[in-house]
Amino acid sequence: MSYQGPESFRKAVVALAKLPGVGEKTAQRLIFHLMKGKKENISFLTQALEQLKAQVTICAQCFGYSDTQICPVCTDVKRDQHTICVVEEPSDVFAIERSGHYRGVYHVLHGVLAPLDGVGPSALKIKELFLRAQSQEIKEVLIATNPNVEGDATALYLAQGLRNQDIPVSRIAMGLPMGGHLEYADRVTLARAIAERRDFSIR
Amino acid sequence: MSYQGPESFRKAVVALAKLPGVGEKTAQRLIFHLMKGKKENISFLTQALEQLKAQVTICAQCFGYSDTQICPVCTDVKRDQHTICVVEEPSDVFAIERSGHYRGVYHVLHGVLAPLDGVGPSALKIKELFLRAQSQEIKEVLIATNPNVEGDATALYLAQGLRNQDIPVSRIAMGLPMGGHLEYADRVTLARAIAERRDFSIR
Repeated sequence: MSYQGPESFRKAVVALAKLPGVGEKTAQRLIFHLMKGKKENISFLTQALEQLKAQVTICAQCFGYSDTQICPVCTDVKRDQHTICVVEEPSDVFAIERSGHYRGVYHVLHGVLAPLDGVGPSALKIKELFLRAQSQEIKEVLIATNPNVEGDATALYLAQGLRNQDIPVSRIAMGLPMGGHLEYADRVTLARAIAERRDFSIR
Repeated sequence: MSYQGPESFRKAVVALAKLPGVGEKTAQRLIFHLMKGKKENISFLTQALEQLKAQVTICAQCFGYSDTQICPVCTDVKRDQHTICVVEEPSDVFAIERSGHYRGVYHVLHGVLAPLDGVGPSALKIKELFLRAQSQEIKEVLIATNPNVEGDATALYLAQGLRNQDIPVSRIAMGLPMGGHLEYADRVTLARAIAERRDFSIR
Protein backbone atom coordinates (compact mmCIF):
# COMPACT_ATOMS: atom_id res chain seq x y z
CA MET A 1 0.00 0.00 0.00
CA SER A 2 1.55 3.27 -1.04
CA TYR A 3 -1.06 5.82 0.06
CA GLN A 4 -1.63 5.70 3.79
CA GLY A 5 -3.30 8.99 4.51
CA PRO A 6 -2.09 11.78 6.77
CA GLU A 7 0.83 11.25 9.16
CA SER A 8 -1.30 10.98 12.31
CA PHE A 9 -3.55 8.48 10.58
CA ARG A 10 -0.59 6.35 9.54
CA LYS A 11 0.84 6.39 13.06
CA ALA A 12 -2.47 5.26 14.54
CA VAL A 13 -2.60 2.43 12.00
CA VAL A 14 0.91 1.33 12.96
CA ALA A 15 0.02 1.40 16.67
CA LEU A 16 -3.21 -0.57 16.24
CA ALA A 17 -1.61 -3.06 13.85
CA LYS A 18 0.76 -4.09 16.66
CA LEU A 19 -2.18 -5.80 18.37
CA PRO A 20 -2.41 -9.53 17.76
CA GLY A 21 -4.75 -10.48 14.94
CA VAL A 22 -4.97 -6.88 13.75
CA GLY A 23 -3.37 -6.31 10.38
CA GLU A 24 -2.92 -3.06 8.50
CA LYS A 25 -6.28 -3.40 6.78
CA THR A 26 -8.17 -4.09 10.01
CA ALA A 27 -6.37 -1.22 11.74
CA GLN A 28 -7.45 1.13 8.96
CA ARG A 29 -11.02 -0.10 9.25
CA LEU A 30 -11.03 0.46 13.02
CA ILE A 31 -9.72 3.97 12.55
CA PHE A 32 -12.27 4.80 9.86
CA HIS A 33 -14.84 3.72 12.42
CA LEU A 34 -13.34 5.90 15.15
CA MET A 35 -13.10 8.85 12.78
CA LYS A 36 -16.74 8.55 11.72
CA GLY A 37 -17.99 8.55 15.29
CA LYS A 38 -17.78 11.32 17.86
CA LYS A 39 -14.27 12.30 18.83
CA GLU A 40 -15.14 11.56 22.45
CA ASN A 41 -15.27 7.87 21.53
CA ILE A 42 -11.53 8.00 20.92
CA SER A 43 -10.99 9.51 24.38
CA PHE A 44 -13.26 6.89 25.92
CA LEU A 45 -10.96 4.23 24.53
CA THR A 46 -7.64 5.90 25.28
CA GLN A 47 -8.71 6.83 28.81
CA ALA A 48 -9.82 3.28 29.54
CA LEU A 49 -6.46 1.99 28.32
CA GLU A 50 -4.50 4.61 30.26
CA GLN A 51 -6.47 3.75 33.38
CA LEU A 52 -5.76 0.09 32.77
CA LYS A 53 -2.08 0.91 32.53
CA ALA A 54 -2.14 3.01 35.69
CA GLN A 55 -4.32 0.82 37.87
CA VAL A 56 -3.96 -2.83 37.01
CA THR A 57 -1.26 -4.47 39.03
CA ILE A 58 -0.40 -7.98 40.15
CA CYS A 59 -2.01 -9.33 43.32
CA ALA A 60 0.67 -9.73 45.98
CA GLN A 61 -0.69 -13.13 46.97
CA CYS A 62 -1.87 -14.94 43.83
CA PHE A 63 -0.11 -12.82 41.17
CA GLY A 64 -3.28 -12.50 39.10
CA TYR A 65 -4.46 -9.15 37.77
CA SER A 66 -5.87 -6.80 40.38
CA ASP A 67 -6.70 -3.14 40.97
CA THR A 68 -5.80 -3.58 44.63
CA GLN A 69 -2.75 -4.93 46.44
CA ILE A 70 -4.60 -8.16 47.21
CA CYS A 71 -7.19 -9.19 44.62
CA PRO A 72 -10.90 -9.66 45.38
CA VAL A 73 -10.63 -13.42 44.88
CA CYS A 74 -7.90 -13.72 47.54
CA THR A 75 -9.96 -11.73 50.04
CA ASP A 76 -13.34 -13.32 49.28
CA VAL A 77 -14.42 -15.11 52.46
CA LYS A 78 -17.04 -17.03 50.51
CA ARG A 79 -14.30 -18.77 48.52
CA ASP A 80 -12.36 -21.75 49.72
CA GLN A 81 -9.05 -20.15 50.71
CA HIS A 82 -7.47 -23.56 51.36
CA THR A 83 -7.52 -24.79 47.77
CA ILE A 84 -5.09 -23.24 45.32
CA CYS A 85 -5.40 -23.62 41.58
CA VAL A 86 -2.05 -23.08 39.87
CA VAL A 87 -2.18 -21.60 36.37
CA GLU A 88 0.38 -20.33 33.91
CA GLU A 89 -1.05 -16.92 32.99
CA PRO A 90 -3.46 -14.33 34.41
CA SER A 91 -5.73 -15.02 31.44
CA ASP A 92 -6.11 -18.63 32.63
CA VAL A 93 -7.86 -17.31 35.76
CA PHE A 94 -10.53 -15.83 33.51
CA ALA A 95 -10.92 -19.14 31.67
CA ILE A 96 -11.39 -21.15 34.87
CA GLU A 97 -13.74 -18.57 36.41
CA ARG A 98 -15.81 -18.76 33.23
CA SER A 99 -16.33 -22.49 33.77
CA GLY A 100 -18.15 -21.63 36.99
CA HIS A 101 -16.91 -24.81 38.65
CA TYR A 102 -14.10 -23.64 40.86
CA ARG A 103 -14.57 -21.98 44.24
CA GLY A 104 -10.99 -21.92 45.53
CA VAL A 105 -8.26 -19.36 44.97
CA TYR A 106 -5.45 -19.07 42.44
CA HIS A 107 -1.72 -18.89 42.01
CA VAL A 108 -0.40 -17.53 38.73
CA LEU A 109 3.09 -18.72 37.74
CA HIS A 110 3.56 -16.16 34.94
CA GLY A 111 4.98 -18.74 32.56
CA VAL A 112 6.05 -22.37 32.38
CA LEU A 113 9.36 -24.11 32.83
CA ALA A 114 11.10 -24.08 29.46
CA PRO A 115 14.76 -24.98 29.95
CA LEU A 116 15.50 -24.68 26.23
CA ASP A 117 14.35 -21.07 26.33
CA GLY A 118 16.27 -20.47 29.55
CA VAL A 119 13.14 -20.30 31.74
CA GLY A 120 13.97 -21.99 35.02
CA PRO A 121 12.03 -22.14 38.31
CA SER A 122 13.42 -18.82 39.52
CA ALA A 123 11.87 -16.99 36.57
CA LEU A 124 8.40 -18.09 37.69
CA LYS A 125 6.36 -17.54 40.86
CA ILE A 126 7.24 -21.05 42.07
CA LYS A 127 9.18 -20.13 45.20
CA GLU A 128 6.20 -17.97 46.16
CA LEU A 129 3.85 -20.94 45.74
CA PHE A 130 5.98 -23.14 47.98
CA LEU A 131 6.20 -20.40 50.62
CA ARG A 132 2.45 -19.84 50.41
CA ALA A 133 1.73 -23.56 50.78
CA GLN A 134 4.01 -23.58 53.82
CA SER A 135 2.67 -20.54 55.62
CA GLN A 136 -1.03 -21.01 54.89
CA GLU A 137 -3.25 -23.92 55.71
CA ILE A 138 -3.62 -25.46 52.27
CA LYS A 139 -5.56 -28.67 51.80
CA GLU A 140 -5.16 -29.06 48.04
CA VAL A 141 -3.13 -27.67 45.21
CA LEU A 142 -4.83 -28.19 41.83
CA ILE A 143 -2.31 -27.82 39.04
CA ALA A 144 -3.93 -26.43 35.90
CA THR A 145 -0.92 -25.75 33.70
CA ASN A 146 -1.59 -26.43 30.03
CA PRO A 147 -1.66 -30.01 28.75
CA ASN A 148 1.56 -29.94 26.75
CA VAL A 149 5.21 -30.83 27.32
CA GLU A 150 6.13 -27.67 29.23
CA GLY A 151 2.90 -27.63 31.22
CA ASP A 152 3.36 -31.28 32.20
CA ALA A 153 7.00 -30.76 33.17
CA THR A 154 6.05 -27.76 35.28
CA ALA A 155 3.27 -29.75 36.95
CA LEU A 156 5.73 -32.51 37.78
CA TYR A 157 8.22 -30.03 39.22
CA LEU A 158 5.54 -28.47 41.41
CA ALA A 159 4.23 -31.84 42.57
CA GLN A 160 7.73 -32.87 43.63
CA GLY A 161 8.26 -29.66 45.54
CA LEU A 162 4.90 -29.91 47.29
CA ARG A 163 5.41 -33.56 48.23
CA ASN A 164 8.01 -32.43 50.74
CA GLN A 165 5.36 -30.25 52.36
CA ASP A 166 2.83 -33.09 52.52
CA ILE A 167 0.18 -31.20 50.62
CA PRO A 168 -2.25 -33.14 48.40
CA VAL A 169 -1.70 -32.20 44.77
CA SER A 170 -4.09 -32.77 41.89
CA ARG A 171 -3.98 -32.07 38.18
CA ILE A 172 -6.90 -31.10 35.91
CA ALA A 173 -8.13 -34.05 33.86
CA MET A 174 -7.00 -34.51 30.28
CA GLY A 175 -9.06 -36.36 27.74
CA LEU A 176 -11.55 -35.84 24.96
CA PRO A 177 -13.12 -32.38 24.91
CA MET A 178 -16.89 -32.32 25.47
CA GLY A 179 -18.73 -32.50 22.17
CA GLY A 180 -15.64 -33.97 20.52
CA HIS A 181 -15.51 -37.06 18.33
CA LEU A 182 -13.20 -40.04 18.75
CA GLU A 183 -12.77 -39.97 14.99
CA TYR A 184 -11.32 -36.48 15.00
CA ALA A 185 -9.38 -36.65 18.26
CA ASP A 186 -5.63 -36.46 17.87
CA ARG A 187 -3.45 -39.45 18.75
CA VAL A 188 -1.94 -37.93 21.89
CA THR A 189 -5.25 -36.83 23.38
CA LEU A 190 -6.78 -40.21 22.75
CA ALA A 191 -3.80 -42.03 24.27
CA ARG A 192 -4.06 -39.82 27.34
CA ALA A 193 -7.83 -40.29 27.58
CA ILE A 194 -7.31 -44.04 27.61
CA ALA A 195 -4.42 -43.97 30.04
CA GLU A 196 -6.38 -41.76 32.43
CA ARG A 197 -9.66 -43.66 32.11
CA ARG A 198 -11.91 -43.58 35.17
CA ASP A 199 -13.86 -46.30 36.94
CA PHE A 200 -17.38 -46.36 35.59
CA SER A 201 -18.74 -49.58 37.13
CA ILE A 202 -22.18 -49.42 38.64
CA ARG A 203 -22.16 -51.00 42.07
CA MET B 1 -19.36 -14.29 31.55
CA SER B 2 -19.53 -13.66 35.26
CA TYR B 3 -15.89 -13.03 36.20
CA GLN B 4 -14.42 -10.11 34.33
CA GLY B 5 -11.38 -9.24 36.35
CA PRO B 6 -10.59 -5.95 38.05
CA GLU B 7 -12.65 -2.83 37.38
CA SER B 8 -10.07 -1.11 35.17
CA PHE B 9 -9.69 -4.30 33.16
CA ARG B 10 -13.43 -4.56 32.62
CA LYS B 11 -13.67 -0.94 31.53
CA ALA B 12 -10.91 -1.42 28.98
CA VAL B 13 -12.72 -4.49 27.65
CA VAL B 14 -15.93 -2.48 27.28
CA ALA B 15 -14.10 0.32 25.45
CA LEU B 16 -12.30 -2.03 23.04
CA ALA B 17 -15.41 -4.12 22.42
CA LYS B 18 -17.10 -1.03 20.97
CA LEU B 19 -14.84 -1.32 17.94
CA PRO B 20 -16.42 -3.05 14.95
CA GLY B 21 -15.61 -6.74 14.73
CA VAL B 22 -14.20 -6.78 18.25
CA GLY B 23 -16.28 -8.82 20.69
CA GLU B 24 -15.78 -9.25 24.41
CA LYS B 25 -13.54 -12.25 23.95
CA THR B 26 -11.32 -10.52 21.39
CA ALA B 27 -11.15 -7.41 23.58
CA GLN B 28 -9.95 -9.55 26.51
CA ARG B 29 -7.36 -11.20 24.31
CA LEU B 30 -6.06 -7.83 23.11
CA ILE B 31 -5.81 -6.61 26.69
CA PHE B 32 -3.99 -9.74 27.86
CA HIS B 33 -1.56 -8.99 25.06
CA LEU B 34 -1.14 -5.36 26.14
CA MET B 35 -0.71 -6.40 29.79
CA LYS B 36 1.97 -8.95 28.95
CA GLY B 37 4.04 -6.42 27.04
CA LYS B 38 5.76 -3.32 28.32
CA LYS B 39 3.43 -0.71 29.74
CA GLU B 40 4.88 1.78 27.25
CA ASN B 41 3.16 -0.16 24.47
CA ILE B 42 -0.16 0.97 25.90
CA SER B 43 0.98 4.60 25.83
CA PHE B 44 2.26 4.16 22.30
CA LEU B 45 -1.25 3.16 21.28
CA THR B 46 -3.17 5.73 23.31
CA GLN B 47 -0.86 8.56 22.25
CA ALA B 48 -1.22 7.64 18.59
CA LEU B 49 -5.01 7.65 18.96
CA GLU B 50 -5.03 10.93 20.90
CA GLN B 51 -2.81 12.48 18.24
CA LEU B 52 -5.16 11.19 15.58
CA LYS B 53 -8.04 12.80 17.42
CA ALA B 54 -6.18 16.09 17.80
CA GLN B 55 -4.61 16.35 14.36
CA VAL B 56 -6.72 14.70 11.73
CA THR B 57 -9.14 17.07 10.16
CA ILE B 58 -11.05 17.33 6.91
CA CYS B 59 -9.33 18.91 3.92
CA ALA B 60 -11.04 22.22 3.13
CA GLN B 61 -11.00 21.45 -0.59
CA CYS B 62 -11.67 17.72 -1.07
CA PHE B 63 -13.05 16.86 2.41
CA GLY B 64 -10.79 13.84 2.73
CA TYR B 65 -8.75 13.20 5.88
CA SER B 66 -5.81 15.52 6.33
CA ASP B 67 -3.38 16.77 8.95
CA THR B 68 -3.27 20.13 7.21
CA GLN B 69 -5.94 22.59 6.08
CA ILE B 70 -5.49 21.46 2.49
CA CYS B 71 -4.44 17.82 2.07
CA PRO B 72 -1.23 16.71 0.31
CA VAL B 73 -3.20 15.28 -2.62
CA CYS B 74 -4.90 18.62 -3.29
CA THR B 75 -1.56 20.45 -3.25
CA ASP B 76 0.42 17.87 -5.20
CA VAL B 77 1.53 19.57 -8.43
CA LYS B 78 2.39 16.18 -9.93
CA ARG B 79 -1.26 15.16 -9.79
CA ASP B 80 -3.85 16.14 -12.35
CA GLN B 81 -5.72 18.90 -10.52
CA HIS B 82 -8.32 19.11 -13.27
CA THR B 83 -9.85 15.67 -12.75
CA ILE B 84 -11.99 15.10 -9.68
CA CYS B 85 -12.95 11.66 -8.45
CA VAL B 86 -16.10 11.84 -6.32
CA VAL B 87 -16.37 9.24 -3.55
CA GLU B 88 -18.75 8.65 -0.67
CA GLU B 89 -16.35 8.28 2.27
CA PRO B 90 -12.77 9.22 3.18
CA SER B 91 -11.98 5.50 3.29
CA ASP B 92 -12.83 5.26 -0.43
CA VAL B 93 -9.88 7.56 -1.16
CA PHE B 94 -7.59 4.94 0.37
CA ALA B 95 -9.19 2.22 -1.75
CA ILE B 96 -8.71 4.12 -5.00
CA GLU B 97 -5.17 5.20 -4.13
CA ARG B 98 -4.38 1.55 -3.46
CA SER B 99 -5.37 0.65 -7.02
CA GLY B 100 -2.51 2.85 -8.19
CA HIS B 101 -4.42 3.85 -11.32
CA TYR B 102 -5.70 7.29 -10.53
CA ARG B 103 -3.64 10.45 -10.75
CA GLY B 104 -6.31 13.11 -10.27
CA VAL B 105 -7.72 14.60 -7.07
CA TYR B 106 -10.76 13.75 -4.94
CA HIS B 107 -14.01 15.05 -3.58
CA VAL B 108 -15.50 13.26 -0.61
CA LEU B 109 -19.29 13.57 -0.25
CA HIS B 110 -19.40 12.15 3.29
CA GLY B 111 -22.40 9.99 2.54
CA VAL B 112 -24.91 9.21 -0.20
CA LEU B 113 -28.35 10.48 -0.97
CA ALA B 114 -30.81 8.41 1.03
CA PRO B 115 -34.21 10.15 1.04
CA LEU B 116 -35.77 7.40 3.14
CA ASP B 117 -33.21 8.08 5.88
CA GLY B 118 -33.67 11.81 5.49
CA VAL B 119 -30.29 12.37 3.81
CA GLY B 120 -30.79 15.01 1.14
CA PRO B 121 -28.22 16.91 -0.99
CA SER B 122 -27.67 19.54 1.70
CA ALA B 123 -26.41 16.91 4.15
CA LEU B 124 -23.58 16.02 1.76
CA LYS B 125 -20.68 17.99 0.27
CA ILE B 126 -22.58 18.35 -3.03
CA LYS B 127 -22.96 22.13 -3.11
CA GLU B 128 -19.20 22.28 -2.48
CA LEU B 129 -18.57 20.01 -5.48
CA PHE B 130 -20.67 22.19 -7.77
CA LEU B 131 -18.93 25.34 -6.53
CA ARG B 132 -15.55 23.71 -6.98
CA ALA B 133 -16.40 22.61 -10.52
CA GLN B 134 -17.48 26.16 -11.27
CA SER B 135 -14.53 28.02 -9.81
CA GLN B 136 -11.76 25.68 -10.89
CA GLU B 137 -10.82 24.52 -14.36
CA ILE B 138 -12.19 20.98 -14.26
CA LYS B 139 -11.99 18.77 -17.31
CA GLU B 140 -13.60 15.64 -15.89
CA VAL B 141 -15.57 14.51 -12.87
CA LEU B 142 -15.30 10.77 -12.31
CA ILE B 143 -18.13 9.59 -10.07
CA ALA B 144 -17.04 6.65 -7.93
CA THR B 145 -19.98 6.28 -5.58
CA ASN B 146 -20.74 2.66 -4.72
CA PRO B 147 -22.56 0.49 -7.24
CA ASN B 148 -25.87 0.22 -5.41
CA VAL B 149 -29.22 2.01 -5.42
CA GLU B 150 -28.12 4.97 -3.30
CA GLY B 151 -24.77 5.27 -5.05
CA ASP B 152 -26.42 5.20 -8.47
CA ALA B 153 -29.05 7.76 -7.45
CA THR B 154 -26.36 10.05 -6.08
CA ALA B 155 -24.32 9.66 -9.27
CA LEU B 156 -27.38 10.61 -11.33
CA TYR B 157 -28.05 13.66 -9.16
CA LEU B 158 -24.44 14.82 -9.53
CA ALA B 159 -24.43 14.23 -13.29
CA GLN B 160 -27.56 16.32 -13.67
CA GLY B 161 -26.10 19.14 -11.62
CA LEU B 162 -22.83 19.11 -13.54
CA ARG B 163 -24.52 19.02 -16.93
CA ASN B 164 -25.54 22.63 -16.37
CA GLN B 165 -21.89 23.51 -15.93
CA ASP B 166 -20.88 21.70 -19.13
CA ILE B 167 -18.34 19.50 -17.40
CA PRO B 168 -17.72 15.98 -18.72
CA VAL B 169 -18.84 13.43 -16.18
CA SER B 170 -17.86 9.77 -16.05
CA ARG B 171 -18.72 6.86 -13.78
CA ILE B 172 -16.46 3.97 -12.77
CA ALA B 173 -17.24 0.79 -14.71
CA MET B 174 -19.44 -1.87 -13.22
CA GLY B 175 -19.19 -5.50 -14.23
CA LEU B 176 -17.63 -8.78 -13.24
CA PRO B 177 -14.85 -8.44 -10.68
CA MET B 178 -11.41 -9.58 -11.89
CA GLY B 179 -10.85 -13.24 -11.09
CA GLY B 180 -14.61 -13.75 -10.78
CA HIS B 181 -16.65 -16.47 -12.46
CA LEU B 182 -19.76 -16.02 -14.58
CA GLU B 183 -21.18 -19.01 -12.76
CA TYR B 184 -20.98 -17.32 -9.38
CA ALA B 185 -21.80 -13.77 -10.43
CA ASP B 186 -25.07 -12.42 -9.08
CA ARG B 187 -27.92 -11.61 -11.45
CA VAL B 188 -27.66 -7.84 -11.10
CA THR B 189 -23.92 -7.69 -11.69
CA LEU B 190 -24.20 -9.91 -14.74
CA ALA B 191 -27.08 -7.87 -16.17
CA ARG B 192 -25.05 -4.70 -15.69
CA ALA B 193 -21.93 -6.29 -17.20
CA ILE B 194 -23.95 -7.18 -20.31
CA ALA B 195 -25.72 -3.82 -20.54
CA GLU B 196 -22.40 -1.96 -20.21
CA ARG B 197 -20.46 -4.22 -22.57
CA ARG B 198 -17.62 -2.59 -24.47
CA ASP B 199 -16.58 -2.72 -28.08
CA PHE B 200 -13.94 -5.41 -28.50
CA SER B 201 -13.65 -5.61 -32.30
CA ILE B 202 -10.20 -5.74 -33.77
CA ARG B 203 -9.88 -3.29 -36.61
